[in-house]
Amino acid sequence: MEFDSTKIYGIVGGLGADASAKLYLDIVNGTISQNNERYPAVLVWNIPIKKVDDEALMQEPRDDKNVVFNLLKDAVDRLSRAGANVIGIACNTIHFLIHKLPIYNNVSFLNIVDCTVEKIKNLNVSNVGLLATTSTIKSGIYSNPLSQHGINVILPNENDQRIVVEIIFKVLEKREDSRFKDEIKRIIKAMGVTTVILGCTELPLIFKQSDIEDVIVIDTIEVLRESMMNATG
Amino acid sequence: MEFDSTKIYGIVGGLGADASAKLYLDIVNGTISQNNERYPAVLVWNIPIKKVDDEALMQEPRDDKNVVFNLLKDAVDRLSRAGANVIGIACNTIHFLIHKLPIYNNVSFLNIVDCTVEKIKNLNVSNVGLLATTSTIKSGIYSNPLSQHGINVILPNENDQRIVVEIIFKVLEKREDSRFKDEIKRIIKAMGVTTVILGCTELPLIFKQSDIEDVIVIDTIEVLRESMMNATG
Repeated sequence: MEFDSTKIYGIVGGLGADASAKLYLDIVNGTISQNNERYPAVLVWNIPIKKVDDEALMQEPRDDKNVVFNLLKDAVDRLSRAGANVIGIACNTIHFLIHKLPIYNNVSFLNIVDCTVEKIKNLNVSNVGLLATTSTIKSGIYSNPLSQHGINVILPNENDQRIVVEIIFKVLEKREDSRFKDEIKRIIKAMGVTTVILGCTELPLIFKQSDIEDVIVIDTIEVLRESMMNATG
Repeated sequence: MEFDSTKIYGIVGGLGADASAKLYLDIVNGTISQNNERYPAVLVWNIPIKKVDDEALMQEPRDDKNVVFNLLKDAVDRLSRAGANVIGIACNTIHFLIHKLPIYNNVSFLNIVDCTVEKIKNLNVSNVGLLATTSTIKSGIYSNPLSQHGINVILPNENDQRIVVEIIFKVLEKREDSRFKDEIKRIIKAMGVTTVILGCTELPLIFKQSDIEDVIVIDTIEVLRESMMNATG
């Protein structure tokens, strides 16, 4: 082998593709900016999910073993087979199914939700805003572990949550709009929080820390990238 | 298997990463725009090449079996092992080594140079401009097959070729500059051609058909995408 194969990144991608490509490029750029002499070994697998299943997944945390779970298991199997040993999924929503995945030997599996919760705990806050799919919210993957640490999860009101989901769908379909940035900013301000989790990987594609003052923006793609780069293969 | 595994795209990437991510996203978007109900199965492998080897590769077509060729063979092996059966490399330069790769059963290997030559032949032109790395030019991977079909390859003058290579290096290093577009346009106009091949996958990242009038721009990433999508797995 020409390179050190103890660190081969695997990205379970396609949920959606743009977020996955961003994580891939961020790992490449992060590696080069650390003055590595070599580009990183990265594998990306775009899950061939049906559009209707992807959309249903975001609305309701369905325990759909026959479709989504099998695609997820196939993804991790496939990445491991090709050598990946530090694996992450560039999507928050699907993490309600993660505890059902088998344990893979010799693979560090980085859970974007766990990594983000860990980061929030270290911020010493009592409230945190969450912008996410309805499925992520209903499943409690963020609110359960955060409440155990005495941190309240603040959600948008019902109408704003509908707008957040609409924006996520439109970003996925590449129907981006310059007004999305202002809408997201307005929704965060209405929540009255000083820290907010962009708990869906489509959101960092259109909204960044530099777009809002006086609120700490937690970009989950960036949290996952950092965790994967710090992990041991 | 939840999906049709007879068409799993494999992208040998990292030469460079941005071009590879573009090809990946273009395949996803191309699939969705054909009204497919399912997102495509795509694997991307970012070759962990050393920066110095990558830079040397672009300057001189070195037959470096011990380093670059091994990484290339490993890439195709790895993608095949994970199931890819329609494989392409998002890079022109490295194609001087392609004829040395073993034949892979059950894999359609799409050669970006062959696909582009085929396209040029069908345009019924006698001259075509080529913007590429010095290595691509010296190796004759474009000029040899095109001259066999009576098509002259027109190159930039020595000074302009130096500028083209400088631009490619800077795009690879993300040191993009708004002046690159004007420089490329000037160089194409100076070549006096009506058709030009962007024969390095970094170039379509900064220059498009819409940036120039009266010249047909052949984007090799787009040619490879189309060929991969039309191929049978």
